[in-house]
Amino acid sequence: MASELPKKYKAVVYDKPGSISTKIEELDMPEPTAGQVLINLTHSGVCHSDMGVMMNNWSILPAPTQAGQVGGHEGVGKIVKMGPGTENSAVKVGDRVGIKWMAAICESCEACRAGADANCFNGKISGYYTPGTFQQYVLSPANYVTPIPDGLDSAAAAPMLCAGVTVYSALRKSGAESGNWVVIMGAGGGLGHLGVQFSARGIGHRVIGIDHSSKKDVVLESGAEHFLPIDGTDDMTAAVKELTGGVGAHAVLVLTANNNAYASALDLLRFGGRVVCVGIPENEPVPIKNAYPGLMVAKALSIVGSAVGDRKEAIETLDFAARGVVKTHYRVEKKEKLTEVFNEMFEGKMKGRVVLDLS
Amino acid sequence: MASELPKKYKAVVYDKPGSISTKIEELDMPEPTAGQVLINLTHSGVCHSDMGVMMNNWSILPAPTQAGQVGGHEGVGKIVKMGPGTENSAVKVGDRVGIKWMAAICESCEACRAGADANCFNGKISGYYTPGTFQQYVLSPANYVTPIPDGLDSAAAAPMLCAGVTVYSALRKSGAESGNWVVIMGAGGGLGHLGVQFSARGIGHRVIGIDHSSKKDVVLESGAEHFLPIDGTDDMTAAVKELTGGVGAHAVLVLTANNNAYASALDLLRFGGRVVCVGIPENEPVPIKNAYPGLMVAKALSIVGSAVGDRKEAIETLDFAARGVVKTHYRVEKKEKLTEVFNEMFEGKMKGRVVLDLS
Amino acid sequence: MASELPKKYKAVVYDKPGSISTKIEELDMPEPTAGQVLINLTHSGVCHSDMGVMMNNWSILPAPTQAGQVGGHEGVGKIVKMGPGTENSAVKVGDRVGIKWMAAICESCEACRAGADANCFNGKISGYYTPGTFQQYVLSPANYVTPIPDGLDSAAAAPMLCAGVTVYSALRKSGAESGNWVVIMGAGGGLGHLGVQFSARGIGHRVIGIDHSSKKDVVLESGAEHFLPIDGTDDMTAAVKELTGGVGAHAVLVLTANNNAYASALDLLRFGGRVVCVGIPENEPVPIKNAYPGLMVAKALSIVGSAVGDRKEAIETLDFAARGVVKTHYRVEKKEKLTEVFNEMFEGKMKGRVVLDLS
Amino acid sequence: MASELPKKYKAVVYDKPGSISTKIEELDMPEPTAGQVLINLTHSGVCHSDMGVMMNNWSILPAPTQAGQVGGHEGVGKIVKMGPGTENSAVKVGDRVGIKWMAAICESCEACRAGADANCFNGKISGYYTPGTFQQYVLSPANYVTPIPDGLDSAAAAPMLCAGVTVYSALRKSGAESGNWVVIMGAGGGLGHLGVQFSARGIGHRVIGIDHSSKKDVVLESGAEHFLPIDGTDDMTAAVKELTGGVGAHAVLVLTANNNAYASALDLLRFGGRVVCVGIPENEPVPIKNAYPGLMVAKALSIVGSAVGDRKEAIETLDFAARGVVKTHYRVEKKEKLTEVFNEMFEGKMKGRVVLDLS
Repeated sequence: MASELPKKYKAVVYDKPGSISTKIEELDMPEPTAGQVLINLTHSGVCHSDMGVMMNNWSILPAPTQAGQVGGHEGVGKIVKMGPGTENSAVKVGDRVGIKWMAAICESCEACRAGADANCFNGKISGYYTPGTFQQYVLSPANYVTPIPDGLDSAAAAPMLCAGVTVYSALRKSGAESGNWVVIMGAGGGLGHLGVQFSARGIGHRVIGIDHSSKKDVVLESGAEHFLPIDGTDDMTAAVKELTGGVGAHAVLVLTANNNAYASALDLLRFGGRVVCVGIPENEPVPIKNAYPGLMVAKALSIVGSAVGDRKEAIETLDFAARGVVKTHYRVEKKEKLTEVFNEMFEGKMKGRVVLDLS
Repeated sequence: MASELPKKYKAVVYDKPGSISTKIEELDMPEPTAGQVLINLTHSGVCHSDMGVMMNNWSILPAPTQAGQVGGHEGVGKIVKMGPGTENSAVKVGDRVGIKWMAAICESCEACRAGADANCFNGKISGYYTPGTFQQYVLSPANYVTPIPDGLDSAAAAPMLCAGVTVYSALRKSGAESGNWVVIMGAGGGLGHLGVQFSARGIGHRVIGIDHSSKKDVVLESGAEHFLPIDGTDDMTAAVKELTGGVGAHAVLVLTANNNAYASALDLLRFGGRVVCVGIPENEPVPIKNAYPGLMVAKALSIVGSAVGDRKEAIETLDFAARGVVKTHYRVEKKEKLTEVFNEMFEGKMKGRVVLDLS
Repeated sequence: MASELPKKYKAVVYDKPGSISTKIEELDMPEPTAGQVLINLTHSGVCHSDMGVMMNNWSILPAPTQAGQVGGHEGVGKIVKMGPGTENSAVKVGDRVGIKWMAAICESCEACRAGADANCFNGKISGYYTPGTFQQYVLSPANYVTPIPDGLDSAAAAPMLCAGVTVYSALRKSGAESGNWVVIMGAGGGLGHLGVQFSARGIGHRVIGIDHSSKKDVVLESGAEHFLPIDGTDDMTAAVKELTGGVGAHAVLVLTANNNAYASALDLLRFGGRVVCVGIPENEPVPIKNAYPGLMVAKALSIVGSAVGDRKEAIETLDFAARGVVKTHYRVEKKEKLTEVFNEMFEGKMKGRVVLDLS
Repeated sequence: MASELPKKYKAVVYDKPGSISTKIEELDMPEPTAGQVLINLTHSGVCHSDMGVMMNNWSILPAPTQAGQVGGHEGVGKIVKMGPGTENSAVKVGDRVGIKWMAAICESCEACRAGADANCFNGKISGYYTPGTFQQYVLSPANYVTPIPDGLDSAAAAPMLCAGVTVYSALRKSGAESGNWVVIMGAGGGLGHLGVQFSARGIGHRVIGIDHSSKKDVVLESGAEHFLPIDGTDDMTAAVKELTGGVGAHAVLVLTANNNAYASALDLLRFGGRVVCVGIPENEPVPIKNAYPGLMVAKALSIVGSAVGDRKEAIETLDFAARGVVKTHYRVEKKEKLTEVFNEMFEGKMKGRVVLDLS
C-alpha cells in the first residue's frame, strides 16, 4: 500500500500568523519513524482554538505561531503506513483513526503515569507543536491515535475529537450523577449544544440551558428540560432555584468564555455543588467573582477546571456518537474555504461546527 | 440519679453582645423533652467562632446575638437524665458525651439525607441558636451527642469537637492521599497545629507548614516535614516547588482568615491539585485572587470549601485523639475567667486553645 | 383533621404465619407519640419479601413471625396527624408520603452516622418489626417518611419504595458509568424490568438482559439493547463477550435468587468488572461458584452485596418515576384479595407487581 | 559510555524448567531498539512468582517456560545506553531505574487507556515473556522503567518493585481510610511484613496481623497494633470483633495463598467491609467459602481482586521506602547462589526476601 503513496500532498497553512489568513501548500510526504503511523486524513473539524493559535492570542502558549504552520486538531482518516516497531500495535493499515488536541504524549510524566494523558507535562498540541490536521497526511504515534467506531461518519466524528470530548470530560468532572440538575452556560454554542446532549441524553442529567434567547430552539432540541435566556431573565439565581425545587443545581458547566458567566455561576448551586470551568475568557485574567472563601465554606461548594479530555474519554465520546446519542450540528466545506470559515467564526456568525473536506 | 439534680446551676452568658463581656448567671435546671438527654458538662473549649457570635461580627449569622445567650460549642460531660422516647437510644445515663458546633439537625433535609449533617439546612448552632456549652448543664438530642472514647481526658476532648473535626474534615476533602504533599497555611495556629498533626501523623501526608517565623517550633513539633516562614520566604511558590520535586503540592489547606493566603494558594499546587478553604476572612468578601478560569483549566485545579465536619468525622477525630495520634495544646481556665480569655484572644496573644473548667 | 379520625380501621394480617393465609381485622386507631406521624394509607405494594416474612422462610430474620402481624413495606398515603415534637419537621398534615422496607432507624449507629441508613444496626423492618402497610393507618417517625413527588400516582409510587429503590441502589453500587455495559440477570422479573429501565433510561447504561425466553418482550420494551434467553443461549459468556466488543461487561446485576446465575456472573465481566448481588437464594447457602481468588486477582474483579437502598436513594428513585423515566408494570387489587395475590406469587404466575387498594 | 560496554555478560537461566535448577550463562550484549534503553543491573530480588515460572506450576501462564529463560522481575541498575527515538524520554544515561513484574505494556488497550497498566491486555511479564532481571544487562522501554529515588539503596529497592507495590496496591484497593481497622492475613511473611508497614506506618490504618505464632515479633515490629496467632486463637471472628469495638474490621487483606484464610475472611468484616484477594491458592481453584450472596447483601460486603500495582503505585511505593517509612527484611546473596535460594524458598525456610548481587 505504501508504494502507492504520492510524493507530495496538499496542506492548508497559516501563512500570516497573527491575522486571519491561510493558503494551500504542497508538502513532501513524510515517512513514519519508530512507533509512528502515517494517516491519510479525509476530514478535519475547525475549532475556535485553531483561530486562537493562528491569531496568536492565546496567552497560555509559549511562543508565537510560525508562518507555514499546519493547524487543526480534529482529524479523521485511514492509516496508510506503519513505521518500524509498530508490529504489536493495536492498529493496522486501513484502520480509521482520529487525531485530537493532544497529538502525542510522553508516557513518562506524573500526569501520564496517573492516566491523565490530557495533562501530559510534555504533550504536543496538534496544529501548534506538530503539523496538524488541515492536511491530507499526518504522522502520529501508533499508540496514541483514537480508533473511530464503525457506523460513525468521518465528518461527524471530527468535531467529537475536540468539542465532544471536552464537554464529556467536563461533565465527568462535574460529579453530577444521573438525575441531578446541571446548568449549562453557553448551552446553544458549538460546545454547548453537545454538552446538553451528553448531559441530558448520555448521562441522564436534568439540564437547564442558559444562552441568548436566539439559541432557545437548539438548546431545547438538544435535550434541555428548561431554557433560561440570558437576555430575558431578571434574576437568574431565583429562576434556577425555582426550577430545581428551591435549592439550586448540583453542577454548573461554564462553556462560554465570558467573565460574567463565571461571576454568577456559584450562585446557581445547591449545597455541595460544583462549578466546572471550561471556557477561558480572553484578555487580562479576572478572578471568578463570587469565589469568596466564606461562601464556598458555608455551602461546601467547589470549583474545578477541565481542559480537553483524555484518550479514554475520547473513545467513550465517540462511542456515544456512534450510537447516535449525541449529534453535532455541522456543515462540510472544502479545504480551500478555510480562510472564509475563520472569518465567519471571527465575526460570530458561525452556527454549529464546520468540518473541512480535505480531499 | 435524676432525683439528685439541683434546681439551679451556673452558666456564663454574653451580657452585652457586640462587646467582650460575659458574666455568670444562675439558670433553672431544664427538663429533657422527647428524644433529649440532659448532660452535666465539666469542660468547654473556647473557640474564635464563639467570639464572632458574641461580637456580632459574623455576617453569615442571620440576626444579632441576644443578651443572655449562653455561648460555647465544644462541651464535654456526662448524661444525667434521659427524656421520654430515648429508651432505644445508643447512649444512657452515665455516658460521657460531647456537644459540637452543630447542636441539632433535622434529619430530613437534603444534606441530612445525604449523610452530610454538618450542612443540615435546619441545623442549630450550639451557643447561638441554642444555649451552648459555657454552662454546667445542657440539653441535646439523644441521637446527636458525640460519644467520648475512654482514655481521652475531657479537657483534651473539648477542642477536638470543633477545631479537631474542622481540620480533619478539611483534610478528607482535600483528596490528598497518604504520601502526598500537603501545604498548610496557618500551620502554627489553633487549627493549624492540629491540622499538621492529623495530616502528618494521622493520614501520613508529607506536610509543609507555612506561618510566621515565630511558629516554626510548634509546626515542626507537630510533624511537618518542612517549615516555610511567611516573613522570611522571598518566593513561596518557588520554595514549595523545590521541596516537592519541582511540581508543587497535591493540596493546600488555608486555615487562616487571610485574603493574602488565598491569593497565593493556587500557585502552590501541582497539576490536579486542590485548595481547601477553611478560614473565612472578615469584612467585605474578596474573591480568591488567582481563581482565574484559565489557570484552573490549564492545570486541572480545584477549590473546595469545608466547614465543620459531620458526626462521623467527629467520632473519627476523637478516635485519633484517644489513641494519642493528635494532641491539642491547651490550658484550663476557670469558667469565671471567660471574659479575660476572650480579651486575650482578641488581642492575638493566645497560644493554643483554652478549655473552661465548668465545675 | 385529627378530630375526624375513626376509632377503628381495617388491616390485613397474617393469621397463620408459615402458610399463605391473611384476613381482614379491625384495629384501634393508634396515636402518634413523640416524633411520629400518623398516615392514612391508600395503597401498598406486595413484595416477595412479604411472602418470605409470612411464610417464615427467610433465615436472616431473627424470630418467627407472630400471628396477627400486619405485613407490607411499600405504602403510600397522607399524613393525618402529627405527634408531639414534630413542629419543625419537614412534613405536615396533608403531605403524601411513603413507608419503605426500613420503617425506622436509630440515627445513632455506625451505619446511620455514615449516611447508610438502609444498613442501620437497629433498623425496624416494616411489616415484621412494626405493623406494616397492609392497613389503612400506620405510624412512622416524622423524619423518616419518604415524600411522594407531585404527579406520581400513589399506586405507581408504591412498588418504587422497595423494588425500585432496591434496583436503583444496586446500579449505583455497580460502579458502572453512563455508556458502560451492564448485564442484568433476571431482567424480566419484578425487580428486573425496573432494573433495566433505571439502567438504560435513567443512567444511560447499555443493557444486556438475561432471562427466560418468555420474558424477551418485557426486557426489550424496558430498554435493554440486547436480550439473551437463558433457555436458548449455548454459551452465555461467549454471547456477552461478542455483544461487548470481545471483552465482557462492566457490571453484572444478579436480581434473581438463583445460585446458577451467581455461578456464571463473574465470567461475564471484563477486566475490573463488578458483580452486584441482590437476589438471595433460599435454602442452604452456596458460595458464589466462580469466586476463585486467582480469577478475581487476574482480572481485578469485584463482588459487592446490595440490600435495599437508603432514604436518599428512595427520593431519587421516586424522582425518576415521577418524571416518567421508569414505570412499573402493576395491577391494583382490593385488600381483601391479598391471600389470592400471595397464592399467585407462590405459584410463579404473577406478572409485574400487585398494588393493594386499601380503601 | 556505550563504547565501554562488554560484548558478553552473565545471566542466570532456568536450565531445566519444571525443576529447581539454574545456571550461569554468558549472553551477547543486546542493542536497544527504537524506544528502548539498556540497563546495567546490579541487583534483583527473588520472588515466589519466579519459582512459579521456573517450576511451571502457575496455571495462569499460557505456556511452559523454555529452557534458557532468564527469570526475575525485581531488578535495579543504571541506564547505560539509549536506543533511537528516546531523545525526549524522561530518563537518560546514568539514571538508576527499576524493572518490575510488568516489563512492557502496549499503551493501547482498554486497561492502558484507563491508566491501569498493571492489567495491560498485552503486557509482557519480566522473566517469562522477556528475559528478566537475573542478569547483568536488560532491555526495557524507556518510558516504562521505574525511577529509583536517591537515598534508597539498590538492594533495598529491588523487593519494593514487586512485593512492595503488590501490597501497597492492595491496600489502596481496600478502600480503608486512615484510622480504619485492617486485618492482614499472612502478616509475617514476605508480603505480609511489608503490608503491615505500609498499612500502619504509611497510610495510618490500625492493623491486626494474623499469622503463625512464630511470626508474632516481626508482625508487631512492623507496626501492627495487635497480633492474633492462627495456631492459638479459638475463635478468630470473635477475637477480631473484640479488638474492633464489637463490629469487625473495615478491610481484610489476604496475603497468603491459603484457602482457609479466604474461607474465614468475610466473617472478620463490619458492615460495608471489603476483602482484598492477593494470595492465589495453588492446585484446583476453590471458591471463597463464605461468599454467600445472602451474607454479602445483608452486610453490604465486597470482595476485590488485586494483582501487582501499576507504575504510579510503583513510584509511590519507592517514595515510601526512600523516606524510611517501610523497610524490607532481606539479605543479599551472590547470583551464583540462586539455585540454593530457590531450594530454601521451596522448603519454606526463607525468612524475609533474598536479593541477588549481580556483579
